[in-house]
Amino acid sequence: MSEGSKQAKVIFQPSGRRGYISNGVSIKQASQELGVGIEGLCGDEGTCGKCKVRIEEGVFAKYGIESRMENLSPLNKAEKKLLTSKQQRDGYRLACQAHIRGDIVVFVPEESRLAKQVVRKAAGEISVELKPAVRKYYVELKPATLDDTLGDWERLQTELKKRFHLSNLAIDYQALRSLQGVIRQGNWKVTVSLWMNREIIGIEPGVVEKEGYGLAVDIGTTTVAAHLCSLSTGDVIATDSMMNPQVAYGEDVIARINYSMTHKDGLEVMNQAIIRGINKLAGRTAAQAGIKRSAIVDMAVVGNTCMHHIFLSIDPRYLSQSPFPPSLHRSLDIKARDLGVKISPGAYVHVLPIEAGFVGADNVGVLIVEEPYNQDDMALIIDIGTNGELILGNRDRLVSSSCATGPAFEGAEIKYGMRAAPGAIEKIRIDPDTREVRFKVIGKEDWNTELEEVGASGICGSGIIDAVAQLLVAGVINHTGRFNTDLDTPRLRKAEGKPEFIIAWAKETSIGQDIVVCQQDVRNIQLGKGAMYAGAKLMMSQLGLDKLDKIILAGAFGSYIDKESAAIIGMFPDCAQKNIYAVGNAAGDGARIALLNVDKRVEADQKAKEVEYLELTVVPNFEEVFTQAMWFPHMKDRFPHLKHLLPGLKQSKEKVEGGY
Amino acid sequence: MSEGSKQAKVIFQPSGRRGYISNGVSIKQASQELGVGIEGLCGDEGTCGKCKVRIEEGVFAKYGIESRMENLSPLNKAEKKLLTSKQQRDGYRLACQAHIRGDIVVFVPEESRLAKQVVRKAAGEISVELKPAVRKYYVELKPATLDDTLGDWERLQTELKKRFHLSNLAIDYQALRSLQGVIRQGNWKVTVSLWMNREIIGIEPGVVEKEGYGLAVDIGTTTVAAHLCSLSTGDVIATDSMMNPQVAYGEDVIARINYSMTHKDGLEVMNQAIIRGINKLAGRTAAQAGIKRSAIVDMAVVGNTCMHHIFLSIDPRYLSQSPFPPSLHRSLDIKARDLGVKISPGAYVHVLPIEAGFVGADNVGVLIVEEPYNQDDMALIIDIGTNGELILGNRDRLVSSSCATGPAFEGAEIKYGMRAAPGAIEKIRIDPDTREVRFKVIGKEDWNTELEEVGASGICGSGIIDAVAQLLVAGVINHTGRFNTDLDTPRLRKAEGKPEFIIAWAKETSIGQDIVVCQQDVRNIQLGKGAMYAGAKLMMSQLGLDKLDKIILAGAFGSYIDKESAAIIGMFPDCAQKNIYAVGNAAGDGARIALLNVDKRVEADQKAKEVEYLELTVVPNFEEVFTQAMWFPHMKDRFPHLKHLLPGLKQSKEKVEGGY
Repeated sequence: MSEGSKQAKVIFQPSGRRGYISNGVSIKQASQELGVGIEGLCGDEGTCGKCKVRIEEGVFAKYGIESRMENLSPLNKAEKKLLTSKQQRDGYRLACQAHIRGDIVVFVPEESRLAKQVVRKAAGEISVELKPAVRKYYVELKPATLDDTLGDWERLQTELKKRFHLSNLAIDYQALRSLQGVIRQGNWKVTVSLWMNREIIGIEPGVVEKEGYGLAVDIGTTTVAAHLCSLSTGDVIATDSMMNPQVAYGEDVIARINYSMTHKDGLEVMNQAIIRGINKLAGRTAAQAGIKRSAIVDMAVVGNTCMHHIFLSIDPRYLSQSPFPPSLHRSLDIKARDLGVKISPGAYVHVLPIEAGFVGADNVGVLIVEEPYNQDDMALIIDIGTNGELILGNRDRLVSSSCATGPAFEGAEIKYGMRAAPGAIEKIRIDPDTREVRFKVIGKEDWNTELEEVGASGICGSGIIDAVAQLLVAGVINHTGRFNTDLDTPRLRKAEGKPEFIIAWAKETSIGQDIVVCQQDVRNIQLGKGAMYAGAKLMMSQLGLDKLDKIILAGAFGSYIDKESAAIIGMFPDCAQKNIYAVGNAAGDGARIALLNVDKRVEADQKAKEVEYLELTVVPNFEEVFTQAMWFPHMKDRFPHLKHLLPGLKQSKEKVEGGY
Repeated sequence: MSEGSKQAKVIFQPSGRRGYISNGVSIKQASQELGVGIEGLCGDEGTCGKCKVRIEEGVFAKYGIESRMENLSPLNKAEKKLLTSKQQRDGYRLACQAHIRGDIVVFVPEESRLAKQVVRKAAGEISVELKPAVRKYYVELKPATLDDTLGDWERLQTELKKRFHLSNLAIDYQALRSLQGVIRQGNWKVTVSLWMNREIIGIEPGVVEKEGYGLAVDIGTTTVAAHLCSLSTGDVIATDSMMNPQVAYGEDVIARINYSMTHKDGLEVMNQAIIRGINKLAGRTAAQAGIKRSAIVDMAVVGNTCMHHIFLSIDPRYLSQSPFPPSLHRSLDIKARDLGVKISPGAYVHVLPIEAGFVGADNVGVLIVEEPYNQDDMALIIDIGTNGELILGNRDRLVSSSCATGPAFEGAEIKYGMRAAPGAIEKIRIDPDTREVRFKVIGKEDWNTELEEVGASGICGSGIIDAVAQLLVAGVINHTGRFNTDLDTPRLRKAEGKPEFIIAWAKETSIGQDIVVCQQDVRNIQLGKGAMYAGAKLMMSQLGLDKLDKIILAGAFGSYIDKESAAIIGMFPDCAQKNIYAVGNAAGDGARIALLNVDKRVEADQKAKEVEYLELTVVPNFEEVFTQAMWFPHMKDRFPHLKHLLPGLKQSKEKVEGGY
C-alpha cells in the first residue's frame, strides 16, 4: 500500500506529456491519466501485444528525472511471451503489464499510438418526412382568479384540449416542477413541448416559434458520431464524432465484454465513459449550432448489441455466452436523465430495437434506410466490422445473420495492421510481372515514388484487402492462400521460416522497418472473408437463391474497400459489379431517420421483429461451407474482365479444384 | 369434449355464489366465472398451493344438489405434493387442479380468498377490499437455446401473456437492467412485481409467495406518520412517526412558504428534509418488521397543499398569493427514485390529489375514508389544524372550503399556549359559583389537587377551548368575549391594565409563574372559532341548509377536543351532540386505503374533482357573517341541557341579540 501512496514523475515521448503518477499503476493507466493514447485490443489482459512501449534510460537533466528500467515491475510472463529477445534487450515493455515504481520516460512507438481515425464526416442525404416525436404547442391561459382557482396543470390541460384536441396528457415531473414559475414568467402565455402526443416534457414562457433540436447518435465500437438536427426543418445543423472512449477498455466487443466480466464496476466504468462521451458530443454540436444543450429535446441512438447494452448499463456478458440472447429486442424510450444524458431535463432517448444477439440496433438503422422490405430486388446488405452483420431478402422475406469476421478487416490481428489513420497504406497495386509494388498512404495526395518520402506506418483494412487480392493476382499466393516460395523477387523472403512479402521497404516507412504481409495475415483475411461468404451463402440457400440482384455495403469500411479487390478474394457471392455499392454510415442515417420520423420508429420495431435470425453455427453444413469459403476463387474462370491485371495467371500451376 | 358439453351445478361458500358450469373446467375457472376471488400466484400451474379449497360433501336439499368428491377429477401429482395427508382426508383440493365432473359445493377458506377485508381498528366500521397497485406473478420461462434466441424481456412478456393474459407491459429501466441476471439466478423461474397491470417494477429469482409491502405516509405540518402495510393481508405491520423535520424552517405553512421565498435553496432544503425524514421512517418501519427496505414496493402519500408541494419540490409560493391556485389537483404517480425516496428501485409513489389551494391531499384522504358522497346524511367534516378544512354535503353535492383558524387551536399565539405535550393543561373545569379551577395535565393520571405536585407548564389547544368555555359558563367573560372585571375572585387580576384569569398558580406549575388566560387569548380563540363557524355557515347557506345531520372531527385535535366545550363556545353550527364524533387521523387512514386499493385512488381523483371549492373571502356577506360568528352563543337559550353547568348564567346581564 505504501507503494501506491508515493508519486513518480512520468514523461511520455514523443508527445512530451508528463505528470506525477501514483506508484503501482500501470504505464497504460498512467497514459490515460496524462491523455496519451496507447493501443490495446485485449482489455489490458497482456495478450494482444499492441501496447508495446520503449523505456528510455538515463538522466534527463532538463526534466530533472533519472529514468531507469528498475523503476518498473520486472518483466512478467505475458511480456516474456510477447516481446522478442531483442525487444527485451532494447527496453520494450507492454504498457498494460509494466507497473510504475519510480520516475520513468516512456517512448510510445508509432504503431502503438492511438491515432485519430478517419471518419466519414458528412451526413448522407436522406429523404424522410418530418414527423418528430416532440412538437411544440403555444397556448394562452386564462389567469387564475379568486372565482377560478383551478390548478395550473389542469388549466393548461383544459386549454390544450380546447385548442388542439389533445387529451389524456401526462407531464414530466421536472416540467411539472417548473410549471407555475414559467406560466407567470410568460404572463399566462406558454409554449409546451409535447412528446409523442402524450407527455409534456418541457414548458417555455411566451411564444417559441421554432421546434426544438434532436441528436442522432451512432455508437460504433470504435467511433461515436452525433448529428444535431433541427426538428423544424430536418436539417443537420452540426456534426461531430469522437473515438469511442471505451476503446481504452478493449478494442472490440469481446474485449469489452471481458473487461466488464473481469473488472468490478467494469460495466459502470464503460457505461459512464460512453455517457460522458455522448454528453461531450451533445455539448460540442450544440455549441457549433449556437444553441443551448437544453434545447435538444429528443435523441435517437443506434449501436451494435454490445454497445446498446453498455449504453443502457445492461450487463453484456450473456451476449458472449451461447446461446447469446440479448436482454431485449424492442425499442426503448428512456428518460435521458435516467441514463445520465444531459439534454433537456424532460427529454426521452429513443433506442432503436435490435434483431438478435449479434444483429444490433445499428443494423436496424441500415434496415430502415435501405428498406429491402419494400423492394422486389433480392438484396444482400453487409455491414462489415469486427462482426459482419448480414441481411438478405426482399419484400417477401428477410433473413439476418452475423458472422465473426474477426478484426482483420479493421487492420487488427495483422502483423503491420493499423486503423485507417494518417500513415496507413490504404491502396496497393502489385505488378503481375515484376511484382513491384505501388501503394498509397492516407494523408498523402499521391502514390509512392522512389523520390518522395511517404512515411508509411502500417496497413489499414482496405489496404490489406488490396494486398491479398494483388498477391493472388500476381501469383504470390495461390487459391488456398499458400505463398508460392519459388518466385524470384527480393520482396519475397522468409522470417523465422515463414514466407512474407514486403509491401514497403523500411526507407519508405516512418517506423524504420519493412512493412510486410505474412502468411498469418493472409490466413486471417481468409478466415474473415470466409465467414462472411459462408454466411451469405447459407442465407441464400435458406431462401433458395443462387444469385443476388444487389449487394449493399454499409459502414465506413464498406465505403473505402476496393470492390474489385473484394471480388478477387471472394468476399461476396456472385453479383454484377455495378450492383455492388456502398451507402456509407447507414446505421447513423438510420438513427437520423428515426429521430425525424416517429413512423419509422414503429417500422423499425415491426421489421426488426419480422426479420428472421439465422444462427449460422447451427446450420448442419456450416463447417463444410465455411471451410470451402476460406479458399480464394480461381482467377481465370471468374475474372475474365480482369485479364489485363492477371498476367500472373500464366505462371499459375494450380489445379482447378471445384472451389466456388 | 363430451365432458365439456354437460353442465354441473356449483356453489361457492361462504359467499353463496352459484351457477351452472361446463363439466371439465377447473374449480378456479368456475370461481372466476361466478365472481368468486380465489388466490393464486403460479398461473394455475399447481405449484404455489395458494388456491386450497375444501369440498363439502353431502346433500344440500335447499339447493337441490348432492356434492360428492367423486364429482371431481382424482387428486393429481401436484395436489398430492402440496396437500398434507390430513388436508387430503379433510377434502381439500387445489382449485386450479381439480376439474369439475358433476355438482359440487366448494368452501373457500379465509386464507385462500382474494378479497380479504381489512378492518380499521380504531373506528371498527371502515373496511377496504384488498386491491393493491403492485401484484406478484410467478412464471417459468423456456430457457434460450441456439434455435430460440428470443430476448429475455420478450421471452418474459410472452410467458406473462400466455399464463396471465397480461399484455402491453412496460418494464422499469432499473428492473430491465437486472433482468438477465435474475432470470439466470432463478434458473429461468422468476417472480415479477407488476404495477397497475402495466409496468414491471421489479423481478426476483424463483417463487416469491408473499406480496410485497407498502408504506402509507401522512405528512402533517408538525408530524409525519408512516404505516408499513402488508400487501398480502392489508395488515399494518409497523407504524412510526416523527416530528416533521421542516419544523426547523417554520412552525406553520405560511412560515415555510416564507422560508422558501426568502432563502436561496429554501425549497430544496425543506424538500430534502422531508425526503430524508420519510426515508428514515421507511427504514425504521422496515427494520421493525424485519424486512428489507427494498421490499417496500408501493407508497401512498397525503398532506396539506403546502406539504404536498414541498414534498414534490414544487415552489409553494403561489399558494400564499391571491388567488392561491395550486400547481395541480390530480393525483400523481412518480418514480420513488425521481423523488429521492429510497424504497424498491422501480417503485412508484402515489400522491393523492388535492382539492384546492388550501384543501389538500390530507382532506382527500378524509373524504375517501368518510365517503360523505355515499350518504344521505348531511355531514360537515372538519379537519382542525392551523388551517381548518371543511367539507359539507352528501351524495347529492359536496362543497369544501378552508378557513384561516390561525394557530390558537394548536396552542400557539396563546400567552401560555403550548403543544399537546407532557405538562400541558389539557382539561379545565371552573366552578361557576366559586370560580375555583381544576385541571388535568398531560402525563398525569389525575386532576390537580392541593396535595400533589402537578407541574403544569402551559395550556394546549383542547385546554384553551375548555378554559374559554368554562370562563364563559362561569360568567368570567361575556358573549362578546369581554372580561367581567367586577367579579370577586383572586384569580381575576389585571396585568398592564388588561384583565387576565389565573388557571394555575405558580406553585402548581413547573415554570414558576402563574399560568393565565388573558383577553388576547380569548380574542384569538374567537377569531379561530369565528372563522370556522362562519365558514360552515356560509357553506350551509350555499347548500340552502339550516341544520346538519352530523359533524365529523378529523385530525388529532378533533380527537382530544371536549365536544361540549366546543359547543359552548360555538365552534360548530347546531348539531345534536351525539352526532358529533371524532374519527382520529382520517387523513392517514385515507393514505392507507389508497395504498391498499387502487379503486379508491380513482375514487379520490373523481371525488376531489367533484367537490366544489368555495372561496369564503369572495362571498359578499363574508365580513358580516365572520364578525357575528366571533361572538359566543348566549348560554341559556342554546344549552338548556347544560343548566347544571351554568349557574353563572344567573349573573349574566347580557341582552339576547339574535344568534351570533
